[in-house]
Amino acid sequence: MSTEKIPYKIYLEESEMPKAWYNLRADMKNKPAPLLNPATHEPMKAEELAGVFCEELIKQELDDTTPYFDIPEDIRNFYKMYRPSPLVRAYCLEEKLQTPAKIYYKFEGNNTSGSHKLNSAIAQAYYAKKQGLKGVTTETGAGQWGTALSMACSYFGLDCKVYMVKVSYEQKPFRREVMRTYGASVTPSPSTETQVGRKILEEHPGTTGSLGCAISEAVEKATTTEGYRYVLGSVLNQVLLHQSVIGLETKTALDKYGIKPDIIIGCAGGGSNLGGLIAPFMGEKLRGEADYRIIAVEPASCPSFTRGKYAYDFCDTGMVCPLAKMYTLGSGFIPAPNHAGGLRYHGMSSTLSQLYADGLMEATSVPQTAVFEAAEQFARVEGILPAPESAHAIKVAIDEAMRCKETGEEKTIVFGLTGTGYFDMVAYEKFHDGKMEDYIPTDEELQASFDKLPKMD
Amino acid sequence: MSTEKIPYKIYLEESEMPKAWYNLRADMKNKPAPLLNPATHEPMKAEELAGVFCEELIKQELDDTTPYFDIPEDIRNFYKMYRPSPLVRAYCLEEKLQTPAKIYYKFEGNNTSGSHKLNSAIAQAYYAKKQGLKGVTTETGAGQWGTALSMACSYFGLDCKVYMVKVSYEQKPFRREVMRTYGASVTPSPSTETQVGRKILEEHPGTTGSLGCAISEAVEKATTTEGYRYVLGSVLNQVLLHQSVIGLETKTALDKYGIKPDIIIGCAGGGSNLGGLIAPFMGEKLRGEADYRIIAVEPASCPSFTRGKYAYDFCDTGMVCPLAKMYTLGSGFIPAPNHAGGLRYHGMSSTLSQLYADGLMEATSVPQTAVFEAAEQFARVEGILPAPESAHAIKVAIDEAMRCKETGEEKTIVFGLTGTGYFDMVAYEKFHDGKMEDYIPTDEELQASFDKLPKMD
Repeated sequence: MSTEKIPYKIYLEESEMPKAWYNLRADMKNKPAPLLNPATHEPMKAEELAGVFCEELIKQELDDTTPYFDIPEDIRNFYKMYRPSPLVRAYCLEEKLQTPAKIYYKFEGNNTSGSHKLNSAIAQAYYAKKQGLKGVTTETGAGQWGTALSMACSYFGLDCKVYMVKVSYEQKPFRREVMRTYGASVTPSPSTETQVGRKILEEHPGTTGSLGCAISEAVEKATTTEGYRYVLGSVLNQVLLHQSVIGLETKTALDKYGIKPDIIIGCAGGGSNLGGLIAPFMGEKLRGEADYRIIAVEPASCPSFTRGKYAYDFCDTGMVCPLAKMYTLGSGFIPAPNHAGGLRYHGMSSTLSQLYADGLMEATSVPQTAVFEAAEQFARVEGILPAPESAHAIKVAIDEAMRCKETGEEKTIVFGLTGTGYFDMVAYEKFHDGKMEDYIPTDEELQASFDKLPKMD
Repeated sequence: MSTEKIPYKIYLEESEMPKAWYNLRADMKNKPAPLLNPATHEPMKAEELAGVFCEELIKQELDDTTPYFDIPEDIRNFYKMYRPSPLVRAYCLEEKLQTPAKIYYKFEGNNTSGSHKLNSAIAQAYYAKKQGLKGVTTETGAGQWGTALSMACSYFGLDCKVYMVKVSYEQKPFRREVMRTYGASVTPSPSTETQVGRKILEEHPGTTGSLGCAISEAVEKATTTEGYRYVLGSVLNQVLLHQSVIGLETKTALDKYGIKPDIIIGCAGGGSNLGGLIAPFMGEKLRGEADYRIIAVEPASCPSFTRGKYAYDFCDTGMVCPLAKMYTLGSGFIPAPNHAGGLRYHGMSSTLSQLYADGLMEATSVPQTAVFEAAEQFARVEGILPAPESAHAIKVAIDEAMRCKETGEEKTIVFGLTGTGYFDMVAYEKFHDGKMEDYIPTDEELQASFDKLPKMD
C-alpha cells in the first residue's frame, strides 16, 4: 500500500495491464441459465450457434467454469493504443459536493469510439479474422458499438456491415461518418436488404426502427452471406468476459493504493459495462473474500431490472435469436425515445440477471432530466462531457455521495464512466432549452408486453 | 536512460509535470518585435493594454527576459484533471508505413475542449479571477478555443461571452451546445451587439463572418463592459508561454527514455500549439545545446509563413487591436473555407515569426485533400480521429517517415496531435463523398491584400 497522496488519475504501467480476461461465471454457484433453441426449448449447442457466431467466441459464450481466458497478444497490443484507461479520483466533484465520500471513476471514453465498446469489438474482430472470415455484421443504436466495431475491423482488415437504427442514422449523421472513416458500410434499419427488414417495413411502414429490429437484420445478413458472422456489443457472456478488462484494471489501480471501495456503480443497458466493471469485485464477493454494494442504474423509461420479469425471452424483435433467461420488458417492448440510446434495450445480460435474482446486487432507475442535471454538474467540475448512458451512473454516485454528506460517512464510491457525449449534443440542447421529457412506462404497457413473452413449459 | 522497451504511451507521473512555464523569448537573441500602438506606432505600454487584458497576463506578454514563470497551484491542480497528456509511440503507423523512422506524437485531444487550447484558457481564466473580474470575452472560429474557455470560466465561476464566427455558429451547433453546457453565452458574429459588428453588417450584409471580425467584437465588448477583459487563444506571447507545458512534458517524456528527436512538426495557425510544442527544443537550439529540424505546417489556403509578408499588421479585421510584426497575409485577407478553421488566420505569432525570419525553423504548406487522406490513414491504424488542424502535422510526419523509408534513415520524428475531429464530421463527409476542394490563393489575391497593409515609416 502506497502512502503517497492519491493522484488525480491513476494510470497503470503497460506491464500491469491484464493478461487474461476474468470469467465471472466460473465463481457463480448459480450459473446463468443457458440459451435455448426457440423451436425445441433445448439448450443451444455449439454447433447450432456456429452459423451465427465465430467458433472461439462460442466457446467463450458457453464456458461457465474456466475462470481465466488469456488475452491474445494482438489484442493486448491493440489495447495498448488506448488502454490502460485512467481511474480518476473526482477531487473536484467531491469538493463541489462538500462530501466526505471519496469518489473514483474508471473513464473509458478516451478513444475514438467514445466508449468501452472497443474492448470487446477488438476481441470479436480478432477471432473473426483468425477464423478466416471475410467480414462481420452487427447493429448499432446510439452508434458507439458500431463505431467501435468499425475501428476494430479496419485494424484487422475485415469487412464491417452495420445496421443502424433508422432514427439514429438520421439524427446522428456524424456517428455514421465516423464509421465510414473506418471503412464500414452503414445501412439504416429496417432496410429492404433483408427478409426480416422487408417484413417489418410491410407491417410498420414509416417505422424508425429499434435495436431489436436491427439485430434481426444483422443476424439474417450474417447467416445468409458466405464468410460472414454476426457480432454483438452487449448482453452476451463473451462480451462481459472481454469487458472484465475494465474491472481488472480498476481493481489493480485501487489495490496499488490500498483503496477498498464500499459502493460500485454502473449504468446498465444490456450489461456490458456493468458486467465488466464489477467482475473481479463480484468474484471476491462470490468467493466470500470481500463485500461490496453493487448498484446497476437504468433509465426509468426502460427499467428491465427494476420493473421487468425474470423470464426466457427473445433477444431481438424478429425472434430469430435464441431465447435467453433474463430480466426483460418483453422483446416487443419499444422503449420511449430516451436519449441514452445505449440503455434502450428490453433485456439484460443473463449473468447479471442471475446475480440480481440471487440478491448479489441492487438496481435502481432514474428519469432522464435528473440524469442530464447530474451530467452537466459533473462536466462543469470534472471537465469531461459524459455520454447520457454514463451519466446514469454519475447521478447515483452523486446521490450516494450526498447521503454520505448527511451521515458523515467517508465511503469510497467507484463508478464506471463509460463514454463521452460529443455525439449527443442534440439531447443536451433539449435539456438546456427545457424541452426534455421524462418517460415512464405505465404498468398496463408493461403488462401488455409481458403477455407476449414466449410460453415456456 | 531506460533500456526497457518504449511503451505505446508514455505518461509522466504527476510529480514530473512542469511546475513552471518556459518563456522562449528569454533565450532569443533577436527578440520578437513589440506590439505597436496603431495611432502613434510607438510600442504599447502595459498601461495602454490594461483596458483590454488582465494585468498579470500583460506582464507575461511584455516580458521577454524572464525564462520561467511559476505555474500557480490552482492551475496545476486543474492541469491534473486532464494532464499529463500522453506522448504516444506510433508503432501501428510505423508498421503500416513500413518505415524505419520512429514516430511519436504528443496527444492533446483527451479533454472535452478536444484540443490543447485548455492549457492557456485555464491560465487566462485564473488571472482574470485573481484580478477580481466578473467575466471575459473572446472569439472562436472552429470552436475549440471557445469550448476551452467556457470550461475554464465555469471552473472559476467567471462569466464567459463568446463571439462565434457566424458560419461556424450555424454549421457547428454542437460546439455551441458544449459551450452552453459550461454556462457560456455564445453570439454569432458579426452581431448587432457591438458598434464594429453593426458597421461590418452594414458594409457586408449577409456576411458569414471571420475570425478577424469576431476578435474586433470581443475586444469592443470587453473594453466597454465593467469588470470584463478580453482573452485570446493564440498568436500572443502569453499563450505560447502557457502552451510551453506541451513541449516541457514532451521533452521530459523523451528524456526519460533517452530519446532525441531529429524532426519536430506542428501545425500552425496563430502558433499556439507549435510555439508550445517546440519551446524547450528551440530553447536548446538557441543556446547551442542541441539541433533539431523544426517544421511548421500550414494550409495551402492560408499560407502565412510560406507566402505571407513579414510586416506590421493588425491582428483583427476591425483594426481595433495593436499592430504586431508577423508573417501575415493582410488583416483584410479572407481565407477560403478550408475545414481547418483553427488554422484560418491571416497572421502568425510574432515569436514564431522572428524565429522563422532568423532561419531557425522551416515551414511548409499542404492542400486539404492531402491532409484528409493522411487523417484517415492515421485514424485507421492509430485509432484516433484527428482534428483537421492536427492532420496537417500528420501529413508532413508521414511524408518525412516515407522519406526515411527511401533513404533507410532511422530518424526520430515528433509531432503535435493537437486535437480530435469529432465536431468536424461535415468535413470528413465531404472528403468521403469526393466533394472536398483545395483552395490556393493566387499571387494577385495576395498582392491585393498586401497592398492594404498599414504603412509604417
